[in-house]
Amino acid sequence: MGALSPGGPCFVGVDVGGTTIKAALFDDTALFDGAARPVVEVREPTPADAGPDAVVAALLAVTRQVVELAQARLARPAAIGVAALGLVDEAAGLAVRSARIGWRDVPLRAIVERELAIPVALGHDLRAAALAEARLGAGRGSASFAFLAVGTGVGGAVVLDGVPLTGAHARAAEIGHLRVAGADLACPCGSVGCLETVASARGIALAYRARTGRTVTAADVAGRLADDADAAAVWARAVDALAEALAICQLVVDPAAVVIGGGLSLAGDLLLRPLRGALADRVTLGPAPPLVRSALGDRSALVGAGLLAARLLGG
Amino acid sequence: MGALSPGGPCFVGVDVGGTTIKAALFDDTALFDGAARPVVEVREPTPADAGPDAVVAALLAVTRQVVELAQARLARPAAIGVAALGLVDEAAGLAVRSARIGWRDVPLRAIVERELAIPVALGHDLRAAALAEARLGAGRGSASFAFLAVGTGVGGAVVLDGVPLTGAHARAAEIGHLRVAGADLACPCGSVGCLETVASARGIALAYRARTGRTVTAADVAGRLADDADAAAVWARAVDALAEALAICQLVVDPAAVVIGGGLSLAGDLLLRPLRGALADRVTLGPAPPLVRSALGDRSALVGAGLLAARLLGG
Repeated sequence: MGALSPGGPCFVGVDVGGTTIKAALFDDTALFDGAARPVVEVREPTPADAGPDAVVAALLAVTRQVVELAQARLARPAAIGVAALGLVDEAAGLAVRSARIGWRDVPLRAIVERELAIPVALGHDLRAAALAEARLGAGRGSASFAFLAVGTGVGGAVVLDGVPLTGAHARAAEIGHLRVAGADLACPCGSVGCLETVASARGIALAYRARTGRTVTAADVAGRLADDADAAAVWARAVDALAEALAICQLVVDPAAVVIGGGLSLAGDLLLRPLRGALADRVTLGPAPPLVRSALGDRSALVGAGLLAARLLGG
Repeated sequence: MGALSPGGPCFVGVDVGGTTIKAALFDDTALFDGAARPVVEVREPTPADAGPDAVVAALLAVTRQVVELAQARLARPAAIGVAALGLVDEAAGLAVRSARIGWRDVPLRAIVERELAIPVALGHDLRAAALAEARLGAGRGSASFAFLAVGTGVGGAVVLDGVPLTGAHARAAEIGHLRVAGADLACPCGSVGCLETVASARGIALAYRARTGRTVTAADVAGRLADDADAAAVWARAVDALAEALAICQLVVDPAAVVIGGGLSLAGDLLLRPLRGALADRVTLGPAPPLVRSALGDRSALVGAGLLAARLLGG
């Protein structure tokens, strides 16, 4: 936790994820220097099982907490950015849909504005994360990049000239739902063999359990690669599926780079090294894009939300 | 052939394709009205088998012919746009590579400028075609669209806010090289099972021959759908592969529409109707984008080249 730099405005970023809600206070300096370190940060579990209303209440509570922490330092946040999971209509300020939370067309922007009396920008978590990587993180030097977030699920963003592509229906870069060869598990989206069923943390854990009968996390699987053939096989399958999806992105958008984020990116070279190899093997037209790890880690969407808030004031 | 409208500048567009080189004279009115009708147009076969030098000579000859036809009408083209097949570096003015022509790093822009003493813009044939569809054709009303050209090969472009995406290595939208499920033919690109091997005019003709021993064109196959089970099976396979690739484009860029061009688009509803159905079946996230046929037909790259010429003068 840092000190507020005097004089400049401060902003609240909120990241509503499937597992955790994070809210943080950024001042101008903290937001726009390379570290993007929040002045204060609060995290609470997302009460997803308790339903949409509980999630909205929890989101308001953590946001209020950060606003009050700001006020205790004699500062008043100039704007709030909320980055939400699922399908988000940024222009309309709506959380349109999230299978995890179960909400439909929740006017999140208006709700937070009304409750906290501070201007609010609503964004999509992965596009916000990609924006943060573009401005302050691993995408900084790249004219374009594909952002791939491998966590509980698999999602992404396509960043062109520093701007995450939204798409005509706010659905660009649904990379987790690209079908991969040889995959046959049903996906909640209604399709079969989606990347997410094989390469998400959840998919990896389920595949390991199917092979061994043992229940572990994807991080456990990563930790066992050296001496557990089942772990190695499940991991290799996930890596290959990720490479297949990235090769597709390379053919469709030809990005200058790929930035890997999400929880599984914490595995570092255990993920990145084989993924680079698998991608190079698959790319036959042009050079394979360089693959780098997210610089902002599990704060990328939070920082991106702070940037959305700052943008409301022309930042 | 039309009359030159008096007063305004005129432009030459040249489309260097694998089969035909087309050059046309456009005046301001012809280029920017909806019809995009050239004042004069010249077509010659591409002497691809005679090698790169012969193709450059042929391209210069047809271009000179159009310039002289303009001069006969007391007009002098203000700029020339050349849209070339293969890998094109627009910024450097280089025809980098084309398997069909066999050229490598030919400085086409400088060559045409030197020979004709008129400013030249070099473009990529499919991005030029997509630009023309965006400004004057079937993409006119769409904020974004995927352009899919199904001809001898399969290629495309992704148009965002009216601008075809170039990509970091001038390789965006290599849609013909997306791998499709169940395809196993080797592709000249070095990969296996590329869309192009199944769904191009060449791929369709080869697949029909493999089934029946008979040599026909893809257009013949389209003409036999009603009473030739082999033709119907080959066509259905091509349609399904195209739908698979379009579903991928929908997941990656979420375009507002899809525009189908190239020679096979002349089959009209024989192609578009089943393709719409197959795409709707595959899209599970969000609405399937509406699928429309190119409005400029086999002139889209030619008109696009004219637009590139006009843009050189700020058009």
